[in-house]
Amino acid sequence: MPPLVPVSLPATRRFAMPVRVYYQDTDAGGMVFHATYLDFLERARMEWLRSVGWEARRVVAEFSVMFVVRNAALDFVRPAVLDDLLDVSLAVVHAGGAHLELDQRVDRAGEPLVRARVELAFVSLPGHRVARMPGPFRAALADWTGPQPEHSPP
Amino acid sequence: MPPLVPVSLPATRRFAMPVRVYYQDTDAGGMVFHATYLDFLERARMEWLRSVGWEARRVVAEFSVMFVVRNAALDFVRPAVLDDLLDVSLAVVHAGGAHLELDQRVDRAGEPLVRARVELAFVSLPGHRVARMPGPFRAALADWTGPQPEHSPP
Amino acid sequence: MPPLVPVSLPATRRFAMPVRVYYQDTDAGGMVFHATYLDFLERARMEWLRSVGWEARRVVAEFSVMFVVRNAALDFVRPAVLDDLLDVSLAVVHAGGAHLELDQRVDRAGEPLVRARVELAFVSLPGHRVARMPGPFRAALADWTGPQPEHSPP
Amino acid sequence: MPPLVPVSLPATRRFAMPVRVYYQDTDAGGMVFHATYLDFLERARMEWLRSVGWEARRVVAEFSVMFVVRNAALDFVRPAVLDDLLDVSLAVVHAGGAHLELDQRVDRAGEPLVRARVELAFVSLPGHRVARMPGPFRAALADWTGPQPEHSPP
Repeated sequence: MPPLVPVSLPATRRFAMPVRVYYQDTDAGGMVFHATYLDFLERARMEWLRSVGWEARRVVAEFSVMFVVRNAALDFVRPAVLDDLLDVSLAVVHAGGAHLELDQRVDRAGEPLVRARVELAFVSLPGHRVARMPGPFRAALADWTGPQPEHSPP
Repeated sequence: MPPLVPVSLPATRRFAMPVRVYYQDTDAGGMVFHATYLDFLERARMEWLRSVGWEARRVVAEFSVMFVVRNAALDFVRPAVLDDLLDVSLAVVHAGGAHLELDQRVDRAGEPLVRARVELAFVSLPGHRVARMPGPFRAALADWTGPQPEHSPP
Repeated sequence: MPPLVPVSLPATRRFAMPVRVYYQDTDAGGMVFHATYLDFLERARMEWLRSVGWEARRVVAEFSVMFVVRNAALDFVRPAVLDDLLDVSLAVVHAGGAHLELDQRVDRAGEPLVRARVELAFVSLPGHRVARMPGPFRAALADWTGPQPEHSPP
Repeated sequence: MPPLVPVSLPATRRFAMPVRVYYQDTDAGGMVFHATYLDFLERARMEWLRSVGWEARRVVAEFSVMFVVRNAALDFVRPAVLDDLLDVSLAVVHAGGAHLELDQRVDRAGEPLVRARVELAFVSLPGHRVARMPGPFRAALADWTGPQPEHSPP
């Protein structure tokens, strides 16, 4: 299988957050357990959504909609280990009316550890039927879809 | 602090299930991560409840009630490691109208690894107000509260 | 993004194991958390390796080698929920001298929930350099690479 | 069972760190899964140890010693939910030559959610024999054992 995720991407605006590695994230192989990276990626997605005003619990209560992960492809390039301070980031690859395709990365001091492509579907509750994102959210996303300078939270 | 949980207990009926240790359960210290034992204990509790006819999802749907863990005390006596086949068990210490106190254990080939005391509260949804267990469940529990011979699922 | 993993596969020998869904596997969206499926897939891989005589801890001790997940692609087709009894399975898509490509699935009563492609690399310790699998293991794997009738553990 | 952990404690120096609740931390009951609080508590312990110059991986490499959790008692007072920003803290209750007893708490805007007593043993590797903490670490701990004003990381 060739690499699932191309390592380069046209320079786009990226959201990044730091994540520390604790014992809970590692396994007896001495490194971060592979499934744990999906947890790290979720944290970055949720903080990014929060940064555009989209808090998950409030959105569910007000709009009866949520994002679900439809598919994910991960390349585990190098292992992270205990005590590492990781840089977990995302960029919007494609924003459709009802889904979102993200490039997500885990790096350590500029060194690539994990490369991921994650597709989210926007669904209504209950029933998880695919829905269209509300206008204000599509507008907020527009800020993240064009090529822009690197961005980190303050 | 003295041991939180007495190692001996009057011979009571015990429910036991086997649990295998995978990489996902371990940490970089080479052993099972301490919080993971709470996952193992939950599996045994849910299979025991299922064995008395109490499936969590159906009970929530029909009765709008659920169990929540109110407190837990764990002694980590010896570590479990990768590939271990563990014996996770429980006995009812006390069954009140609205709560349940359990003695839970993790053993490996008769050797004690973890000793735990877990108290569950029975609550109504939404709001998590303490509620009384329905009669049929209290009756099913009565089978588990007296001293009885060792029991394992078939 | 088109589906990452083709739903059909030439009939090959499959290894399957049952996995029950507990609260620990779910999230506040009411379904199994997406990263948890990677845990389920690991359990099936480790039980399959055990079934061909390959116990992880012993292999590390004797041969100083291990498998690492190099990449994984997952399609989340339908959600699993609390209390579900899942069928987690795998088939060997390709077995090279130093890596293994697996088709992994999570089904519920014949209904597809997750489709995954997982590539494992065989590495030596310490240092995680790619290594060739020992002959006995390659031979044991040969039993799993041809098209064969469905198989489940007894 | 009476509350395992007294709610009040003589005013001691506390170490605190913020923890956000994501989907990965919750369960289908709509709240944080009880075992997840042990993860939160571990994060605070490791950041506190780091703040006194004790990085886990380096300490293992240099001194072949580590902390293990010997026992833990938790009262789950009120549930945390998705998006909550929690305050996870600790204070040293007792520091012996080979073990450490901590009062740990999870609060939300001053409201108590979890109260815990955690005892760590200091052990040597391999073999996990109880060992005495090196002098520099005992000295660093002395800063944390007397009653002192509230402390948070910068």
